[in-house]
Amino acid sequence: MPEFRYERLQKRWVIIAPERQKRASDFIASPVAETIEVCPFCPGQEHQTPPEIFALRSENSEADKTGWKLRVFPNKYPALIPDVDDSKQSDDLILPGIGRHEVLVETPEHESDLADMSINAIADVLKTYKRRILAHRDDPRLKYTLIFKNQGHGSGATRAHPHTQIISTPIIPRTIETELESCREYYEKKSECLLCAMIRKEFKEKRVIFETESIIAYTPFASRLAYETFIVPLPHSHDYTKTVEPVFGTLAAALKFVLKGMREILGTFPYNLTLHTAPHEDNRNDQYPQSCMYYHWHIEILPRMSAVAGFEIGSGFFINTVAPEEAAENLREAIRYLLI
Amino acid sequence: MPEFRYERLQKRWVIIAPERQKRASDFIASPVAETIEVCPFCPGQEHQTPPEIFALRSENSEADKTGWKLRVFPNKYPALIPDVDDSKQSDDLILPGIGRHEVLVETPEHESDLADMSINAIADVLKTYKRRILAHRDDPRLKYTLIFKNQGHGSGATRAHPHTQIISTPIIPRTIETELESCREYYEKKSECLLCAMIRKEFKEKRVIFETESIIAYTPFASRLAYETFIVPLPHSHDYTKTVEPVFGTLAAALKFVLKGMREILGTFPYNLTLHTAPHEDNRNDQYPQSCMYYHWHIEILPRMSAVAGFEIGSGFFINTVAPEEAAENLREAIRYLLI
Repeated sequence: MPEFRYERLQKRWVIIAPERQKRASDFIASPVAETIEVCPFCPGQEHQTPPEIFALRSENSEADKTGWKLRVFPNKYPALIPDVDDSKQSDDLILPGIGRHEVLVETPEHESDLADMSINAIADVLKTYKRRILAHRDDPRLKYTLIFKNQGHGSGATRAHPHTQIISTPIIPRTIETELESCREYYEKKSECLLCAMIRKEFKEKRVIFETESIIAYTPFASRLAYETFIVPLPHSHDYTKTVEPVFGTLAAALKFVLKGMREILGTFPYNLTLHTAPHEDNRNDQYPQSCMYYHWHIEILPRMSAVAGFEIGSGFFINTVAPEEAAENLREAIRYLLI
Repeated sequence: MPEFRYERLQKRWVIIAPERQKRASDFIASPVAETIEVCPFCPGQEHQTPPEIFALRSENSEADKTGWKLRVFPNKYPALIPDVDDSKQSDDLILPGIGRHEVLVETPEHESDLADMSINAIADVLKTYKRRILAHRDDPRLKYTLIFKNQGHGSGATRAHPHTQIISTPIIPRTIETELESCREYYEKKSECLLCAMIRKEFKEKRVIFETESIIAYTPFASRLAYETFIVPLPHSHDYTKTVEPVFGTLAAALKFVLKGMREILGTFPYNLTLHTAPHEDNRNDQYPQSCMYYHWHIEILPRMSAVAGFEIGSGFFINTVAPEEAAENLREAIRYLLI
């Protein structure tokens, strides 16, 4: 049974999940190579995954058979599970590992990436994110839905087939707590969203690489690693699930162009993508200040060209060897070329 | 010129250091293999490094020649440098990248590891940590000396030859700030050190794997990753530089046995080692509460058998697939066997 444990020095929760030891990997330690095992995320292998929860599929196709464009099912080796025995001891430092952990397979194509998919297909993935957050939000035990994607070796992915993970937790992740706190403090002082203020600086200092009326992308002032990019909605919006139909297309286009631009510059590269949005609790209630309307949802793309090593882990600092101004200039150039 | 930039959402400093792009690597991206380039940390290659700052060497040998057991020199591709032009613009969000960045080559043996070295040779490394902290503490611009080690591919190391990095920063790293805060808060409530209280729990719940009168080692209650181990002084001590002669031998033995035990269980494995100690400022002044006497120095060893991926980066949570109780039992068994 998974459980949360609180680490008091770092004020950080850890998930102890021994069941996940059993999961297989497409990668072997060294030399790096994909194993010849049949990919359980590929069409025809639906029996290898738990039954699907949601899919986009052709009209005549059956659940858990071929004919899908996109599929969501519970993770076979979940970090958190919905039916934990919560009668077990639970104190300030230990909590049952309640949650949900799902896999969204983004495309039937094993050798693909969001950068290679059509804008419509990417928009379908992004709409599915919204759908799953709304589904998980119904469970009052769950406080946050974390949506993230590890693409390629070096990103932490154990499967090469393009997929996103959806994990809902009974605790708001520390990263999100910190952002909520920063945004709340700023709002209380300035009656304005912190990210909106930060975006003005990104425009002024020429780090914006993609710009429409609803979505912008930029390499942030204090990028952690080379080519880190944020994709952010305009005007201000705190809750990803409030995103409406036409905006998904623009968001998909931004994502595709940014990833294609990065590949133009970096070659095939591993990355993490994470969606940061307001927690559930605050969206069950629309009244500010109970709601998190001072927050601003966004997508973070973090190319993993350098390792997270002892320095980063020991200090919490990151060392970035490409100034974000240079990254922005290169990405604008790469995207311009792609748009011709 | 390197600079610090403050990321306001995550309340985190980032170091922008484009000069570090130039550094070479023993590893190539894929497939993983050591390049055939001559290792600049090996004996006979002293001309490839900046001039040494400190060395333990045979009586008749000359500086920057062979004959050394251990060598310290400035990092050729520093993340921070002592002579930054600090007349440049500096505001709340940007600071000049002042600091020092040194490399400690632990042994002349390229194919080695602390686990393979004699207890005396490891003690020499540990005493050099103390010596370098004391040297950096003299510079009043520097607030903290971060000592860490990346060993093996997957740890973030770019060089295979065993070495430690020493980075002094004008800002206390966030990780240390958080620990100081936790310890101060606990001390104010309970008039006791938080880590001392946590250690009682480690003993009670049988996660201690090595125990002497001056040093213990254990797999912490909320270990982030499989086989994470803390090595901690007893009795309480906040400042690593107060460590006295005979204790370095015991500390070296603890380190050697823990690393050998891990290798017995995990095979050759990558790891990060970080020293956590009180900041400089508070050690220039020995009066509590100005000093950090409520803090407790320790060494953290983090085997890197699984990746730091989108989940960890996006959430701040870690997922650990080996319960620390199981890790402790296995390590005790492995160490017992080694001691026969």
